[in-house]
Amino acid sequence: MRVAVLGLGLIGGSLVRRLAPQHDVRGYDVDVETRRQARDSGLRTADDLASAVAGRELIVLAVPLDALSTVVGQVASLLPPDAVLTDVGSVKQPVYAAVRGAGLAGRFVGGHPMAGTEFVGFAASDPGLYDGAAWVLCVEPDTVLSLWLRVARLLAGCGVRVVPATAAEHDDAVARISQLPHLLAAALATVAGAGGPLALTLAAGSFRDGTRVAGTPQGLPTAMVRSNGPAVDVAVAAAIELLRGDRDALLASGHDVRRGWPLPAGDPTALDAGEAGLADRLLRVGRLGGWLSIAEPDSLSVHLP
Amino acid sequence: MRVAVLGLGLIGGSLVRRLAPQHDVRGYDVDVETRRQARDSGLRTADDLASAVAGRELIVLAVPLDALSTVVGQVASLLPPDAVLTDVGSVKQPVYAAVRGAGLAGRFVGGHPMAGTEFVGFAASDPGLYDGAAWVLCVEPDTVLSLWLRVARLLAGCGVRVVPATAAEHDDAVARISQLPHLLAAALATVAGAGGPLALTLAAGSFRDGTRVAGTPQGLPTAMVRSNGPAVDVAVAAAIELLRGDRDALLASGHDVRRGWPLPAGDPTALDAGEAGLADRLLRVGRLGGWLSIAEPDSLSVHLP
Repeated sequence: MRVAVLGLGLIGGSLVRRLAPQHDVRGYDVDVETRRQARDSGLRTADDLASAVAGRELIVLAVPLDALSTVVGQVASLLPPDAVLTDVGSVKQPVYAAVRGAGLAGRFVGGHPMAGTEFVGFAASDPGLYDGAAWVLCVEPDTVLSLWLRVARLLAGCGVRVVPATAAEHDDAVARISQLPHLLAAALATVAGAGGPLALTLAAGSFRDGTRVAGTPQGLPTAMVRSNGPAVDVAVAAAIELLRGDRDALLASGHDVRRGWPLPAGDPTALDAGEAGLADRLLRVGRLGGWLSIAEPDSLSVHLP
Repeated sequence: MRVAVLGLGLIGGSLVRRLAPQHDVRGYDVDVETRRQARDSGLRTADDLASAVAGRELIVLAVPLDALSTVVGQVASLLPPDAVLTDVGSVKQPVYAAVRGAGLAGRFVGGHPMAGTEFVGFAASDPGLYDGAAWVLCVEPDTVLSLWLRVARLLAGCGVRVVPATAAEHDDAVARISQLPHLLAAALATVAGAGGPLALTLAAGSFRDGTRVAGTPQGLPTAMVRSNGPAVDVAVAAAIELLRGDRDALLASGHDVRRGWPLPAGDPTALDAGEAGLADRLLRVGRLGGWLSIAEPDSLSVHLP
């Protein structure tokens, strides 16, 4: 497949390196030094947005969340007529609003890989970053399913678990499992810090693990939490209610959820990719905790836990 | 040194295995099968409490928190006159109340190793569990400093960082860095679980690390949180206040604390072990985030960050 990846940080860089052996991939980054690093790693790069995008079937926006709407505006007029646009942003409803505002409804399939580290930049990229990771692909009322399947096949071919969800379902879920962990980690670190050097000297494994994501370079979680405000409000309010309630019950319910995680990987069955009812069938897979993988070239399988 | 360790689970079993090559150590556990496992590992065990304790200079209570006051009562009448009693309980003020109630004030030095895993029992014990770990030893108004130093030397000789603190200081600190992580992990797991299978399928590294301690067998954190109620109330209230406040500021403060942790290890200086003002000097070390280690046989060094 002819692919462009715009933005060559940890997320885009790792994707380009994973795709390069199998596909015709072109990378681009606004930063000249990042482009040079990518070229030095043997990757093909373009020196401007127009030549990065020209003739591509699939274009991945892998830029920071706060740059996304600007780049969407720039890409809108350059997009080849039969190309599909996707992204890797950690919230989806605001991205859909920007994309629809730029007149690209139907051309876009919102995506979000559930992978990352506390490091950033091309130097931290790793072609194995997405092995076995979940990668949400949004199914919305204006989704063109043939374009959705194109993105799904590319990603499933990278060993990713493709998870269908609406943008709203995605944003609710990631508030609970991605933004809330950052806020709780920050609260834990701050309360420990307020205990002074004695508390920090005694801090061991449970503090280390519970605060790991607080070590993330700060801009990322701040942008992520801000941009998913309403869903984060719901998740934080739920956490506060639990913390004010019965502690034995809280410890018991947390233990039950954690012992049942990760969900079991179900046996694969072939995806019926016929257009009739396909959007609903896909969304049902996601709601049941399932995902899609590649069975043989271009054919998708469904896994339900 | 002639040592007895009462209770051969993860904590006591690991300690006996660490001490056995250097000291005359006797282990005891109420569970006959645990005693057999310990003997099969080449350790010396006693078959009843009285023979476990007889002739010992230092006796470690390594029983579960909810059994501690019972065992303190049983040991009280058996304690050799020159022996020092210590423990490994994760809260200290309630243990001191039990010990003083049993007429053992001055005979007891409360201890707490800041190490553990999500596993329990002698089978999970590991002589390396305490390498480099902090181990609180309480300094209270009724502490006999010669007995305190005896326990400190034994533990520092195991490669432990001995941290002096009052029982109240300890309980405040561990509420922040040990009990709060369990409650936040449980809240995170529960809020994620309420998001249904989709949320749990998307959960990745930040969820895994943030909820790790929620996988701990449930009795331990429940007892730990219950027994340190007042200090846990303070830590939970502080966390809730932060979660209701400005999120950018919270993420920034959490990041600052986490990036400064762990505290740097300072260069060692010799401990002035003269009795005059020793309690205050020891407590100052803990309040500054410092600890004691063994320099040469029986001589203690101070490390300040």
